[in-house]
Amino acid sequence: MSLVVQKYGGSSVATAERIKRVAERIVATRKAGHDVVVVVSAMGDSTDELLDLAQQVSPFPPGRELDMLLTSGERISNALVAMAIDALGAEARSFTGSQAGVITTAVHGKARIIDVTPGRIRAALDEGAIALVAGFQGVSQDTKDITTLGRGGSDTTAVALAAALKADVCEIYTDVDGVFTADPRIVSDAAKLDTITYEEMLEMAAAGAKVLMLRCVEYARRYNVPVHVRSSYSDLLGTTVTGSMEDLSVEQALITGVAHERGEAKVTVAAVPDQPGVAAKIFRVIADAEIDIDMVVQNISRAAEGRTDITFTLPKADGPKAVRALEARREEIGFDSIVYNDQVGKVSLIGAGMRSHPGVTATFCEALAEAGVNIDIISTSEIRISVLVRDVDLDKAVQSLHAAFELGSEDEAIVYGGTGR
Amino acid sequence: MSLVVQKYGGSSVATAERIKRVAERIVATRKAGHDVVVVVSAMGDSTDELLDLAQQVSPFPPGRELDMLLTSGERISNALVAMAIDALGAEARSFTGSQAGVITTAVHGKARIIDVTPGRIRAALDEGAIALVAGFQGVSQDTKDITTLGRGGSDTTAVALAAALKADVCEIYTDVDGVFTADPRIVSDAAKLDTITYEEMLEMAAAGAKVLMLRCVEYARRYNVPVHVRSSYSDLLGTTVTGSMEDLSVEQALITGVAHERGEAKVTVAAVPDQPGVAAKIFRVIADAEIDIDMVVQNISRAAEGRTDITFTLPKADGPKAVRALEARREEIGFDSIVYNDQVGKVSLIGAGMRSHPGVTATFCEALAEAGVNIDIISTSEIRISVLVRDVDLDKAVQSLHAAFELGSEDEAIVYGGTGR
Repeated sequence: MSLVVQKYGGSSVATAERIKRVAERIVATRKAGHDVVVVVSAMGDSTDELLDLAQQVSPFPPGRELDMLLTSGERISNALVAMAIDALGAEARSFTGSQAGVITTAVHGKARIIDVTPGRIRAALDEGAIALVAGFQGVSQDTKDITTLGRGGSDTTAVALAAALKADVCEIYTDVDGVFTADPRIVSDAAKLDTITYEEMLEMAAAGAKVLMLRCVEYARRYNVPVHVRSSYSDLLGTTVTGSMEDLSVEQALITGVAHERGEAKVTVAAVPDQPGVAAKIFRVIADAEIDIDMVVQNISRAAEGRTDITFTLPKADGPKAVRALEARREEIGFDSIVYNDQVGKVSLIGAGMRSHPGVTATFCEALAEAGVNIDIISTSEIRISVLVRDVDLDKAVQSLHAAFELGSEDEAIVYGGTGR
Repeated sequence: MSLVVQKYGGSSVATAERIKRVAERIVATRKAGHDVVVVVSAMGDSTDELLDLAQQVSPFPPGRELDMLLTSGERISNALVAMAIDALGAEARSFTGSQAGVITTAVHGKARIIDVTPGRIRAALDEGAIALVAGFQGVSQDTKDITTLGRGGSDTTAVALAAALKADVCEIYTDVDGVFTADPRIVSDAAKLDTITYEEMLEMAAAGAKVLMLRCVEYARRYNVPVHVRSSYSDLLGTTVTGSMEDLSVEQALITGVAHERGEAKVTVAAVPDQPGVAAKIFRVIADAEIDIDMVVQNISRAAEGRTDITFTLPKADGPKAVRALEARREEIGFDSIVYNDQVGKVSLIGAGMRSHPGVTATFCEALAEAGVNIDIISTSEIRISVLVRDVDLDKAVQSLHAAFELGSEDEAIVYGGTGR
């Protein structure tokens, strides 16, 4: 008998009808002889509705109270799923993050899990019950206040519980069939991957693949928890994230897939003195503004003038803030001007195999050239090539790369709407 | 500097606008130099909406999960009020029943408070913050599960906190101006009472006055907590429930008021053997069916046949259940027939002064007679006379008694809609 942790996104429990369907799947898993722990996100848009209420009473709701407010969404959905399971004749017990022993830092809105002490969950399982845990939430070790884990928090809760309980697998039920070689909404013959390594999944997520949050993959990798991403609308097997690249046999596919990201903007700090410490100053300013950056490029085009341009990408939402922060330190940094552009898109090719194949970069650039897509910035990792292109060229870029590396499959991919938290 | 506990009902926080108004009142109290602890019910109909969701997923939701579900309503309203207070520049911290130290029995849906250990509330107050506590909920001492206190739970939470914190007063903000000599919706010149004793308030509540739940008054009386019932829509002083009848001076009003109840039905167990133990059997059957009864009358009309009739009243909702339970034991109890009637209403006259005034009962009956209201059953306590009448006669009965005992006032009473929990 194995222990399975299942996580269901908000769209999977958006209505009473869907909650009943989810309950049937959970009971079926229990009947198959497994111990089952379930993590459920808040129903559909309920979190946004709560946020809207908060905005109506306060322009800047305090983080502690926002967490107290938002965590009720998961309590509601978990209690309802427990009732639906009970109605099917199985025993279920729901627990808050705090009751489940999810101990976090005190940073409201984006707390990090410090420890998981699932004593009550274990006890419930030992008594034959199905345990439900409110996702996305925990309790602060120091203040004993209720905290939330931020975006993708419920996935992280599920993986963290799976690690603490030494579960055999953590199943993430979502509204897609799994991880694809590209977004099926852009590439009609995108193929579903049966397996993918943690490293590749990390690069895919970092490169914009929305199916799993970066943080939850990092957690799964650290504790070596096999994660099975699958659809809550079908019984098809999805994609299993597991193992490291070292385990890959030579026959393994060269390229995993193509990912893209529309949410980034580009900032170029032009004509800064080409001397040590300047880049450091720039990124300290950005860090102090609490902005995460993605790609960073410095080229030598102005070497003659003893100056250089430093370009980086960041979430569009943070663009204006970053520009203001830099302008405020213009003298000190000594740049000439700032060029801001949010009409860009990022396309990435990910594949553990590419390390040993220098030809990949060439094929990559040729494909884009043939598609008439101009490359703005290039940055690479050991198993990823990313380029920034004009946003209007993004779909074309994804399609041409997907075709050039022959990632397509015969069977059409099914696409569902909505996304869970 | 005094410590004030304020409780706001669901209708007082039904919308973002009302929440802001409540926040202003709370901050004003704090600015006046008082320590403030606030208990808020769930927003408007949100509890009913959650119950409806529960019904959609399960015909018989388990109590434990129902409590997990319903308690989220108070978390939401309390967090929102805390945000609104923060937006006004004051410091606020909201706590769940569990965090506030409300320890209860494990009876889900109608847990009783065993102890209140408000350490975190006290700490918040000491740091100058306004403390908000989710009403209607607690945590079970044995199972550590989340519990609810049942109807009127938030009032009880407020009084229990006031007792544990030795508050100077517990203010219950509701949608009426206070306790009236009769329901202003029936009696246009009903007068608001400035003060009322715990005993009188208990009788008023038991007799159908909806303004305060019986249980919360009992709690206040036991711990001698002054309760100030007032409107959340005006700054008028309401009614203060305090002191015992022994403190009443002789000038004190003879009669407090007239209360009525439409929610009861009458069951007559006809021609039972007039011998010891029969009544006991009947009420054991009712008790085993977990039905609360109100008036009980046994008369000797059938003494000649060695038989008697036992009549009692109970909530209409429980009527059919009670009749079924009794029919099932007909042989054993040995009754002839059961007469069930839910076309009845109860009208009561309450007044600590009536103990020493035998004339009251006479005046009472004369008033009803003049109004052409026939009396079905009479039952009395030391400070109350209650009679059962035909439901169509109820308003007339209330009006005639209110007039006969000259309880009217000159100034019109204001009536608002809605009621809190």
